[in-house]
Amino acid sequence: MGELRVRSVLVTGANRGIGLGLVQHLLALPNPPEWVFATCRDPKGQRAQKLASKHPNLVIVPLEVTDPASIKAAAASVGERLKGSGLNLLINNAGIAKTNSLDTETLDNMSQLFTTNTIAPLLLGQAFLPLLKKAAQGSPGSGMSCSKAAIVNMSSIGGSIKEMYLWEAAHCVAYRCSKAALNMLTRCQSMGYREHGILCVALHPGWVQTDMGNAAGYTPPLTVDASVGGMLKVLSNLSEKDSGAFLDWEGNVVAW
Amino acid sequence: MGELRVRSVLVTGANRGIGLGLVQHLLALPNPPEWVFATCRDPKGQRAQKLASKHPNLVIVPLEVTDPASIKAAAASVGERLKGSGLNLLINNAGIAKTNSLDTETLDNMSQLFTTNTIAPLLLGQAFLPLLKKAAQGSPGSGMSCSKAAIVNMSSIGGSIKEMYLWEAAHCVAYRCSKAALNMLTRCQSMGYREHGILCVALHPGWVQTDMGNAAGYTPPLTVDASVGGMLKVLSNLSEKDSGAFLDWEGNVVAW
Ligand SMILES: NC(=O)c1ccc[n+]([C@@H]2O[C@H](COP(=O)([O-])OP(=O)(O)OC[C@H]3O[C@@H](n4cnc5c(N)ncnc54)[C@H](OP(=O)(O)O)[C@@H]3O)[C@@H](O)[C@H]2O)c1
Ligand SMILES: NC(=O)c1ccc[n+]([C@@H]2O[C@H](COP(=O)([O-])OP(=O)(O)OC[C@H]3O[C@@H](n4cnc5c(N)ncnc54)[C@H](OP(=O)(O)O)[C@@H]3O)[C@@H](O)[C@H]2O)c1
Repeated sequence: MGELRVRSVLVTGANRGIGLGLVQHLLALPNPPEWVFATCRDPKGQRAQKLASKHPNLVIVPLEVTDPASIKAAAASVGERLKGSGLNLLINNAGIAKTNSLDTETLDNMSQLFTTNTIAPLLLGQAFLPLLKKAAQGSPGSGMSCSKAAIVNMSSIGGSIKEMYLWEAAHCVAYRCSKAALNMLTRCQSMGYREHGILCVALHPGWVQTDMGNAAGYTPPLTVDASVGGMLKVLSNLSEKDSGAFLDWEGNVVAW
Repeated sequence: MGELRVRSVLVTGANRGIGLGLVQHLLALPNPPEWVFATCRDPKGQRAQKLASKHPNLVIVPLEVTDPASIKAAAASVGERLKGSGLNLLINNAGIAKTNSLDTETLDNMSQLFTTNTIAPLLLGQAFLPLLKKAAQGSPGSGMSCSKAAIVNMSSIGGSIKEMYLWEAAHCVAYRCSKAALNMLTRCQSMGYREHGILCVALHPGWVQTDMGNAAGYTPPLTVDASVGGMLKVLSNLSEKDSGAFLDWEGNVVAW
């Protein structure tokens, strides 16, 4: 189990929670990436900005993931920074949850969650495809890996149709539907982008102590560090056969 | 294997295709329902209207499934017709497909398909819940069945994350994601409405000769009659243990 080595990586929703934790862990690797792009809705006054002052390889990129124009602008600015080289790893981490029940779920809430949690990862995959292809082409050796080119979609066991995890505690119908749809998107990306050498996976980070994780009113069992440490190990071990899989932070397969 | 016996049933998207076929088969049963509500976006000049002139138990209800106000109005008008009795069977059949590929999929198309194929069945379940509850309470005996109270969501094997059915022929990313999300919704409804005695299932009708089925450019193997005949048999045999299942027109379980 080697550690993750990537030249360039982009993490969406890096302002707090798991996204910020991913950025911190990536910067702290013995062989850190040449470029870590941390995207934030509000690039001013957030915590990643503090990190950037200490890490010249960290670039804060403004990105509202529900806005196609913002996605295009982010891809253009990342492309400029990379000066002709590709992006190895796109981590679609930004996401939202609402605790609506089956009775209180609404059209607006469902639409908002589908847009943020499902449609944005599709659009980000499209916008960064040229840079991901370039990274795949520019990486030596055969086979697929996160060091070459990969899309990681932050899903949730809440999106497992089989498990119906913690249904009694929280219906979260829109969240469950949006993450089930994200799992389908991940499978579509894995099949469509295979010919370009891009590995695609959906990850369940565990139940983690973040604003979202704490919102259920219980204290989640996992710290951000434990979750992120686990996920980076999992990512470092992925190969061709894992593309299209749904794995948790310990590498276990989660049922669709 | 008895035939389906229900007092009242509502079918959305009954203007053509599978929806119209369901209405025709229901009216032709040896023991037809007392009320068949066929909803159509455009209640004038459509084929179901012709049937209504011959069948006094058929009521055409105007319904645009993406409009919450239209859904509420439809539920109110059905409630009035039923004069205090409940609705046994809600069939969420209306749906749309687009043949977009992974590269050509858009925010607007994704949103439109989620709204029609996933969110509308949620809203219809909410709006008709009082009538479905009434039907469950008014039906003798224990256990669940389509003769008592049920929600049937017309899904598709295209929504099976495991199968990735006919990917090479048609990506249809938005359609696949919307039907995977519909399968999750079906599971949520089955768990949330169980206490009310309402059975919920997702059905795959097969690949059927309709405008949608023909759009792929091949001739689908199934006629509307074969698909609908099969599905009505499947529905007549459902019991408590099937609530939350994903079944095809022959009663086979489809993988999530
Ligand atoms: N925590 C858990 O237990 C858990 C479990 C399963 C899955 N997950 C998944 O893990 C991911 C991260 O969750 P988290 O716990 O870290 O959540 P969090 O603490 O609530 O942070 C969410 C992040 O996403 C960003 N974001 C939300 N909507 C955005 C938008 N429209 N545009 C740009 N950025 C947006 C937020 O930005 P702002 O700071 O600007 O609001 C924030 O940085 C999510 O996809 C979540 O579904 C979490
Ligand atoms: N055909 C197949 O091979 C196949 C396979 C798997 C699953 N399915 C599913 O089976 C269901 C029926 O499909 P089909 O083949 O009969 O399709 P179809 O021939 O295209 O008919 C679709 C029906 O849905 C209605 N509809 C669409 N959007 C609507 C809206 N916003 N409000 C109200 N009604 C709306 C249409 O009304 P208008 O007439 O007003 O347009 C029409 O009556 C769909 O859910 C589809 O996904 C079909």
